[in-house]
Amino acid sequence: MERIKRNDRLAALSKLLSASPNKLFTLSRFCDLFGAAKSTLSEDIDILCDVYKRFGLGKLDTVTGASGGVRYRPCMERGEAVAFLQELCKELETPNRLLPGGFLYLSDILSMPDIVRQMGVIIAGQFYDEAPDFVLTMETKGIPVALMTAQSMGVPLVIARRSSKVYEGSAVNINYVSGSAGHIETMSLSRRAVKEGQRCLIVDDFLKAGGTAKGMIDLMSEFNVEVVGTAFVMATAHNANRVIHGEKALMIMEEPAGGKLNIHPADWL
Amino acid sequence: MERIKRNDRLAALSKLLSASPNKLFTLSRFCDLFGAAKSTLSEDIDILCDVYKRFGLGKLDTVTGASGGVRYRPCMERGEAVAFLQELCKELETPNRLLPGGFLYLSDILSMPDIVRQMGVIIAGQFYDEAPDFVLTMETKGIPVALMTAQSMGVPLVIARRSSKVYEGSAVNINYVSGSAGHIETMSLSRRAVKEGQRCLIVDDFLKAGGTAKGMIDLMSEFNVEVVGTAFVMATAHNANRVIHGEKALMIMEEPAGGKLNIHPADWL
Repeated sequence: MERIKRNDRLAALSKLLSASPNKLFTLSRFCDLFGAAKSTLSEDIDILCDVYKRFGLGKLDTVTGASGGVRYRPCMERGEAVAFLQELCKELETPNRLLPGGFLYLSDILSMPDIVRQMGVIIAGQFYDEAPDFVLTMETKGIPVALMTAQSMGVPLVIARRSSKVYEGSAVNINYVSGSAGHIETMSLSRRAVKEGQRCLIVDDFLKAGGTAKGMIDLMSEFNVEVVGTAFVMATAHNANRVIHGEKALMIMEEPAGGKLNIHPADWL
Repeated sequence: MERIKRNDRLAALSKLLSASPNKLFTLSRFCDLFGAAKSTLSEDIDILCDVYKRFGLGKLDTVTGASGGVRYRPCMERGEAVAFLQELCKELETPNRLLPGGFLYLSDILSMPDIVRQMGVIIAGQFYDEAPDFVLTMETKGIPVALMTAQSMGVPLVIARRSSKVYEGSAVNINYVSGSAGHIETMSLSRRAVKEGQRCLIVDDFLKAGGTAKGMIDLMSEFNVEVVGTAFVMATAHNANRVIHGEKALMIMEEPAGGKLNIHPADWL
């Protein structure tokens, strides 16, 4: 095999690790790929760690021991996350986003790949230690950000549906009270979608009273799955009747006053 | 500013370019970031081009001229794409995926981030020259692969809904004939989601008779948007009644015979 220079190895390593977030690669795998010694690869990884740190590109996490290796975890520093969300809040406060009934037009933002990718990185960064086995969302608007969170964590996304579908096989259906509207809705999940004993991170777009989120938590208890966290793109402020607790929302929307929107990044950031 | 070594620049460049696919970066931007001369950065880019090519990591595309720069385009070589899809077909042919009514259980595959990312890369690779302004899908199952296609192309995703929602603002609704079931369905899209004169790539999960895809094409003509291509994760074989043409599907599903599934990568690959 042709000898590969350090420059080339570093560029390729950087691409390979960052393309598969949170996936543990053994050093041997890279040794085989590049035809290099373990000690050489160790030095490469050290250099990459420094570079990623210096340029705020995420974190390279080295796991020691027999089943050890190196993995790339996307993460965003606090300052960068707040700046990103502040800019987004400013954009979301433009008056023409306020719809009749006090609703906020968010759909464009929620399906821009680069924006939801960054949201996914921020959310994932809060939950690596909880080691969820999958991310759960309820169709439709939360799917992109939930998918990107799942990608950052290297786990599958699971999508709950509004009704059971012929192409989902046998399903578990639950009824829940939609918090804001107060009426009964149905939520459905294919029986084969998750396994008993797994750990779940719930990600959705908007939190008001929390009826849908509570529905997802109830649905997971039907599957004997533990919910290790709940995260939202946006939550309304001051919701005394909220039926869930301990959630992490990226942005907080104050009650619109005089037709003026007031949206800001959450305090925990 | 501290002098940054080539090793470090290459690792950081590799990460930055691959994190924002199809986005054109000017050399000056990198010169500022790394405090290096244009000639130095040009050499860096040349090295990266070679490395990406050698390891099959995608393509670095250099655009010359005043508005020029360099962009990263994810792509997968033919052999790699076929191998990836062949493995997927094998997995999809397991008998317990065949559901009552001849439906195929695909939902798990369609929301695994790494799998839909690769599908998105393959689809995007077919349409870079068509330069779509956005990717359109119809909720729900096609959203993840459509999002990843949009990410690879560096454009927004637009999601058509089954009915208009209060949080989408004023919307255009059309009726269409669901090809397989033969009944009338509704499709809705927020008026502000797309602009007249834009170019659209349609991406969805499953193509049978093509009623839904035809609906999306009709919807786009209501917005005076040109559809530059249609792509699907899976299409059924031998559908003489299909109402759309020229589609690219990644996998073809033959009529199940004797309860046995027969799925293979498409011929155009």
